[in-house]
Amino acid sequence: MDQFDPHPSNSCPLTPLTYLERASLVYGECTSIVYNNSITYTWSDTHFRCLKLASSISSLGIQRGDVVSVVAPNVPAMYELQFAVPMAGAVINNINTRLDARTISVILQHAESKLVFIDYQLRSVVLEAIALFPSNLKAPILILIQDEDEDGISEIESCFYDTYEGLMKKSGKNCEGFEWIRPKSEWDPMTLNYTSGTTASPKGVLHSHRAIFMATFNSLTDWPLPKQPVYLWTLPMFHSNGWSFTWAMAAVGGVNICLRKLDANIIYSAINTHNVTHMCAAPVVLNMLINFSLAQPLKNPVQFLTGGASPPAAVLQRAECLGFVVIHGYGLTEVGCVVVSCAWKPKWDVLPAGERHKLKARQGIRSLGLTDLDVIDAETGKSVKRDGTTMGEIVLRGGSVMLGYFKNSKGTSNCMKEDGWLYTGDVGVIHPDGYLEIKDRSKDIIISGGENVSSVEVESVLYTNPAVNEAAVVARPDDYWGETPCAFISLKENIVNQKPNEKEIIGFCRERLPHYMSPKTVVFMDELPKSATGKIQKASLREVAKNMGSLPAANTNSKNVNNDDEVKNKKEEEEEELKNGHMIC
Amino acid sequence: MDQFDPHPSNSCPLTPLTYLERASLVYGECTSIVYNNSITYTWSDTHFRCLKLASSISSLGIQRGDVVSVVAPNVPAMYELQFAVPMAGAVINNINTRLDARTISVILQHAESKLVFIDYQLRSVVLEAIALFPSNLKAPILILIQDEDEDGISEIESCFYDTYEGLMKKSGKNCEGFEWIRPKSEWDPMTLNYTSGTTASPKGVLHSHRAIFMATFNSLTDWPLPKQPVYLWTLPMFHSNGWSFTWAMAAVGGVNICLRKLDANIIYSAINTHNVTHMCAAPVVLNMLINFSLAQPLKNPVQFLTGGASPPAAVLQRAECLGFVVIHGYGLTEVGCVVVSCAWKPKWDVLPAGERHKLKARQGIRSLGLTDLDVIDAETGKSVKRDGTTMGEIVLRGGSVMLGYFKNSKGTSNCMKEDGWLYTGDVGVIHPDGYLEIKDRSKDIIISGGENVSSVEVESVLYTNPAVNEAAVVARPDDYWGETPCAFISLKENIVNQKPNEKEIIGFCRERLPHYMSPKTVVFMDELPKSATGKIQKASLREVAKNMGSLPAANTNSKNVNNDDEVKNKKEEEEEELKNGHMIC
Repeated sequence: MDQFDPHPSNSCPLTPLTYLERASLVYGECTSIVYNNSITYTWSDTHFRCLKLASSISSLGIQRGDVVSVVAPNVPAMYELQFAVPMAGAVINNINTRLDARTISVILQHAESKLVFIDYQLRSVVLEAIALFPSNLKAPILILIQDEDEDGISEIESCFYDTYEGLMKKSGKNCEGFEWIRPKSEWDPMTLNYTSGTTASPKGVLHSHRAIFMATFNSLTDWPLPKQPVYLWTLPMFHSNGWSFTWAMAAVGGVNICLRKLDANIIYSAINTHNVTHMCAAPVVLNMLINFSLAQPLKNPVQFLTGGASPPAAVLQRAECLGFVVIHGYGLTEVGCVVVSCAWKPKWDVLPAGERHKLKARQGIRSLGLTDLDVIDAETGKSVKRDGTTMGEIVLRGGSVMLGYFKNSKGTSNCMKEDGWLYTGDVGVIHPDGYLEIKDRSKDIIISGGENVSSVEVESVLYTNPAVNEAAVVARPDDYWGETPCAFISLKENIVNQKPNEKEIIGFCRERLPHYMSPKTVVFMDELPKSATGKIQKASLREVAKNMGSLPAANTNSKNVNNDDEVKNKKEEEEEELKNGHMIC
Repeated sequence: MDQFDPHPSNSCPLTPLTYLERASLVYGECTSIVYNNSITYTWSDTHFRCLKLASSISSLGIQRGDVVSVVAPNVPAMYELQFAVPMAGAVINNINTRLDARTISVILQHAESKLVFIDYQLRSVVLEAIALFPSNLKAPILILIQDEDEDGISEIESCFYDTYEGLMKKSGKNCEGFEWIRPKSEWDPMTLNYTSGTTASPKGVLHSHRAIFMATFNSLTDWPLPKQPVYLWTLPMFHSNGWSFTWAMAAVGGVNICLRKLDANIIYSAINTHNVTHMCAAPVVLNMLINFSLAQPLKNPVQFLTGGASPPAAVLQRAECLGFVVIHGYGLTEVGCVVVSCAWKPKWDVLPAGERHKLKARQGIRSLGLTDLDVIDAETGKSVKRDGTTMGEIVLRGGSVMLGYFKNSKGTSNCMKEDGWLYTGDVGVIHPDGYLEIKDRSKDIIISGGENVSSVEVESVLYTNPAVNEAAVVARPDDYWGETPCAFISLKENIVNQKPNEKEIIGFCRERLPHYMSPKTVVFMDELPKSATGKIQKASLREVAKNMGSLPAANTNSKNVNNDDEVKNKKEEEEEELKNGHMIC
């Protein structure tokens, strides 16, 4: 065979950014973005606005490969930035809006962010994060995202270089000759997402243009998405880049219904007003929707893709009655999207409901963009038996796997191993029919309301309490959030002041961690159980936490909740956290 | 930014072959292939059979990169070989079944084919091709594809190593431990298709696994294909690998309805029996279907993707009445699939039929897998104006572009140029809205009096004449204008009124086209000459037109012009046209 080197005509870098210009040609007059009553853009508008913004970002001196951060909910600016930032050659770093100032500060410093777009509602926490920068470190350029629809047009602090729309206008004529900056190689980085564990050892998942192209391919084909769907943004775009549905919508000319808050009333209203066809969200959002007291059956069915654990059968049934067609998938930030989903077999249609739900609870089969999937025995390094019971670690290989963790070669080599697999840290089984079922997410991760909480990180905060001798944090089942952190603590013997109680320990954590990362349960022990080598036996603590039973949701009667005020407080807190973007994946 | 090298977990070669195992898991019990009344396979069968066959091919000594040829119609074996051959690490070379022995011989020799699968009906021509090999050249291993359903089980000549099913059986236990041979690099060659012009300078289009992955991506997303379609194989699989719908069907778990012959009765029967949802075919097949005297409206609509020139409005209308939803696309073997299609805009729905057909006739917009498309002026090398009238050569860039022509570096560098484009040789315009319209496939431009006349445009007018069955327009030398359009026509058999004569046909065109674009010569034929793929052979018609001699100018004496009146008329006409801006160059 002849040797053929790649030629520029066949090796142009794969990137989903080319979909935007195409959308402006095919769907130019069709709606691209709707937000409240004030904003309706067409794909022609969106293309033009992203070009203008990319031009403006470039003119600020942002270079190829620089990191540009965004801290914003699912507003139109957030959507546009997913295109505009990489079209300026930069790497987009979507930051979780639920993080506290300290964590955001660590991320901005670690990412060496040159420019930060900040939603007006989040400016105080981000400005606080900037204030935590060491004095010798140059602060990034700050741009304020205002919101005409809310109370978002007010005074602009002098620390802001400009507003979002101001920057957009500045591009002016520059834009006309502006050509967006294409990647030189498809391996050039395009996105940077920080997962949990930021203070101890920041893990910034860096994805190439090629990986994001493949993640988008998965999102296009696995559901599959028809042309011109109406897509409701209930999944935060900061969360694994909205599973790449941001770019997928340009591929199919969909309508993006943007939402600032997750509120059942607003979501139902948006579904009915805009004839929503598709949405993604955490199981907790589905829960909220089906438990909404004013819920009415939908006019038209809505495809609902959810991540992580399968919703319980009762939830699925109620959701189906309302008109939600629920599919769940498995993915992680390191692969950019849902890469395993429970592809339904026609022959299962006739099974009794119980059987069907059992089958549906399995995570399923690799998507078209994932090359390989296996479950590997930790001891032998070999594939486990496909018997549905032998557990092992889930490993993946495919086009959407990350480049690695940014500036963290140890973290990278820990999971991207020499045997050619990405090790997920998650535990699963493979059934005889080849379907994957997850038995446990990564041992040290607690998935609370869709967000990963690193137990190590919570422990490191607990250890800073002068009264704490030993601390171990594990997951406890929670009716509302799925799981919440449960801390096991032994106290020092000679404590000068009074011994702290559960409430005080939780308060201590909440001052130092985002709310959702703080323990919801604290158990005091004289000594934590240890192995022969002196390691705290987390496995046995996990058992203890599990046997404590599920922490009840606020709207249930339970012995754990003693009076009406507490019920009310817990419920308000849950709803507040959810509105602010605390999600399950 | 850190430098990240590709890692085995994120850089696994892109190939559509991974879809087959996945199909066996998701759609294992669902039908994969149906052929006549005898064969029905499931995806589990197909996966197993392809593995067995790949194992057998390997055990014949076929090495990575070797070429394996197939000469067969759209029978099940043909479909299976599209997977099995590359799963053995080899390159599949699908050969046009209508070629003569001499051409097949050139291809087999040029490709250095090690193994040839031959359908029983085509064995004599292929054996003749092998007999034309020079005596010092080792003949490839020959495998006979029999057909239980036809008269295909008879004696087997000794030159055949085995039959197809015999080879399949031989794999036996070997297959169990057999792992299909994955490409080492996604740039490894996977397919080899010879385009026309094979004897003079064979052009073997070599595609990499990556290119075929991208071609399949296009075929999955552009239409788009739903899950589990019922696909009728009216497009030959040898024709640009069936536009990659072979592999796409595994991705969506579709049903492949195989067909040995293209016969209107059989096609209608298959559509109704199997509830066909999708099919691809050349315009000539659509023509045949709509002109079929027993055609009845379809029970359910059938999506019909056709290539090349848009069907004339009259054909489209009739097809729509019958229930065919026709989409046409533009592609060439060098890009492996349809890469430009006429993405329909919702706002066009309300336009009058004439307007709609005019818009539909345009080739359209690049597909998601094509990175760039342009129309370039031959002189300046720059993009032409996007005005819908300025013509230039269509150039492409994208993931499905070929590696090059096998063992033909001159041919490769002639079209894959240093400016990073693939030059198609086709002529088109770009409309102000960005839509591409092909004005002529390469060499089909008639330059009359300095103006480019698109033969396609003239043909589309001729097809609107109720008496016209087939039409082809080529250039005839003309003393005055340089070239003028010469129309070759076959008439329908059952014409109610009198058959039109030359003058009436010319008059018909002049009522609908600028004078200079109307044919000046009309030749009636019983049937127009066609290539093996059913394309009208314009090259031979051009020869005929050339041999008719140059059409004399009015002011010369010539035997073609018989009397003074005619001379006068022609002269006046020429002058009139000149006045109206028809220029000589």
